[in-house]
Amino acid sequence: MMVARIRLTDGPDLGNTTYAQVVHGPDQSFSYLPIDDPFRRDAVSAPVTRPVPAAHAELQAPCEPRVVLGMAHNTGPDDRLLAPQAFHKSPHSVIGPGRSIELEPEQTQVDGEAELAVVIGTRARRLTPETALAAVYGYTCANDVTDRAAQVSDSRWTEAKSRDTFTPLGPWIRTDLDPTDLTVLLSDQRDRGTPAHMTDLARNVTEVLVYLTSVLTLYPGDVVLAGAPGRSLRLRPGDTSQVSIAGIGDLVNPVRQTETTPPTAELVNITHSGKVAHR
Amino acid sequence: MMVARIRLTDGPDLGNTTYAQVVHGPDQSFSYLPIDDPFRRDAVSAPVTRPVPAAHAELQAPCEPRVVLGMAHNTGPDDRLLAPQAFHKSPHSVIGPGRSIELEPEQTQVDGEAELAVVIGTRARRLTPETALAAVYGYTCANDVTDRAAQVSDSRWTEAKSRDTFTPLGPWIRTDLDPTDLTVLLSDQRDRGTPAHMTDLARNVTEVLVYLTSVLTLYPGDVVLAGAPGRSLRLRPGDTSQVSIAGIGDLVNPVRQTETTPPTAELVNITHSGKVAHR
Repeated sequence: MMVARIRLTDGPDLGNTTYAQVVHGPDQSFSYLPIDDPFRRDAVSAPVTRPVPAAHAELQAPCEPRVVLGMAHNTGPDDRLLAPQAFHKSPHSVIGPGRSIELEPEQTQVDGEAELAVVIGTRARRLTPETALAAVYGYTCANDVTDRAAQVSDSRWTEAKSRDTFTPLGPWIRTDLDPTDLTVLLSDQRDRGTPAHMTDLARNVTEVLVYLTSVLTLYPGDVVLAGAPGRSLRLRPGDTSQVSIAGIGDLVNPVRQTETTPPTAELVNITHSGKVAHR
Repeated sequence: MMVARIRLTDGPDLGNTTYAQVVHGPDQSFSYLPIDDPFRRDAVSAPVTRPVPAAHAELQAPCEPRVVLGMAHNTGPDDRLLAPQAFHKSPHSVIGPGRSIELEPEQTQVDGEAELAVVIGTRARRLTPETALAAVYGYTCANDVTDRAAQVSDSRWTEAKSRDTFTPLGPWIRTDLDPTDLTVLLSDQRDRGTPAHMTDLARNVTEVLVYLTSVLTLYPGDVVLAGAPGRSLRLRPGDTSQVSIAGIGDLVNPVRQTETTPPTAELVNITHSGKVAHR
């Protein structure tokens, strides 16, 4: 089953957001069948009940995680020599398909990374190799956007990974999928990319989940980025970055330059009395 | 105003959770006056409407952040020489007053740190020194529990900072407070602690918010830990760790050893086919 989160762009329920099953029609067409929020026990009924034609809906990020974790150095067999290590991405950095990845003018070393996103379905703590995959609701595509320059200067990676729009997710969640041997592809309008395989990762999804839940509890709707098995691609304004995973679909996001230039904290020196001294 | 989040432990609304204003009575007594969720525009009305005696309620963490950020190296004037740096704590690590901080048997180098927690009240991006404090809903006490051993082995600090129960918050949010010159005290049953002052931090609350929102957007209910102006205290099972901030109150949490020993990921080697090889 494919589960999307959609916002209605037409009809009497205009503006409503709901989870929905993706239903394929007789030809290439498909529609959305609204369902209750699969990540909340206390979910109220879906705000829409009739099937929604694809043209009347806009895909949103397919879940609303409170926690998004990525795996550091999980890109090749040699990384197995290192202890597993996780980083947070801000859940506010999540965007849906079609939304723009935004770069500040000074951000010239930002890469896209194509990764399998694991969407958690149950409260998950101390998972074992035998129970890990049973805690998964499904899988979607992620673009783990990363500022390489900030990654060097900020060892916590918050500046590199947690900026607004740096975690595109979508287009929808596939609930029945074996994550051990998927093909993952990152491409843009210049570069068709090179297919990579989940088997190229240092640690597979089961190992990642066993590690993470040995440290902390994950909850329904949380997202784990499993690591990038392939190479990254530099993002520039005007690009169209695409993550494709066989069996799920394509996640496409344009790249653009942020419109406003931020005031930087370095320009002012604020005294502890709250006074501002420009220098 | 003091704003708490309470769970009712008695009466017809047993089990309900609501935000509430703390109302002081004629003597030392106080009660709670339920209010709507201050962090949601679409908040439904509070589930309880009558005043609740203090004895009929249990304090919860005073907000439900999606993002909890702390400031690295913001503990003394010398830290101003370093660029500001933020780390995430999992929002699932948040616990309320009275709840236990849990340590695994092997965690013998875990410290408490007393910090001012800044609770965000508005969508906040590119704050300036002039606008920063206007984005704040209020302030509460935080215990930024940190595993020193994990801090050394995991440079992303996820293992050191994001474990379950590692972010006690409370007892309530004070909405009218000047954060520039507060006294912060960490103590336990052995050590009365040494009062520290917010003016001892390398960067004050305004500077921290200007920096963070130059990188990313904060939303209502998000929490920023401003840094520990004083020394930390080692936590051991059986301890009672207390954070006291003048003008807010006391946040008290017992420390205990986790009851179950976790299965560790290192014990098994999982092949990419999903098979498990014990070694």
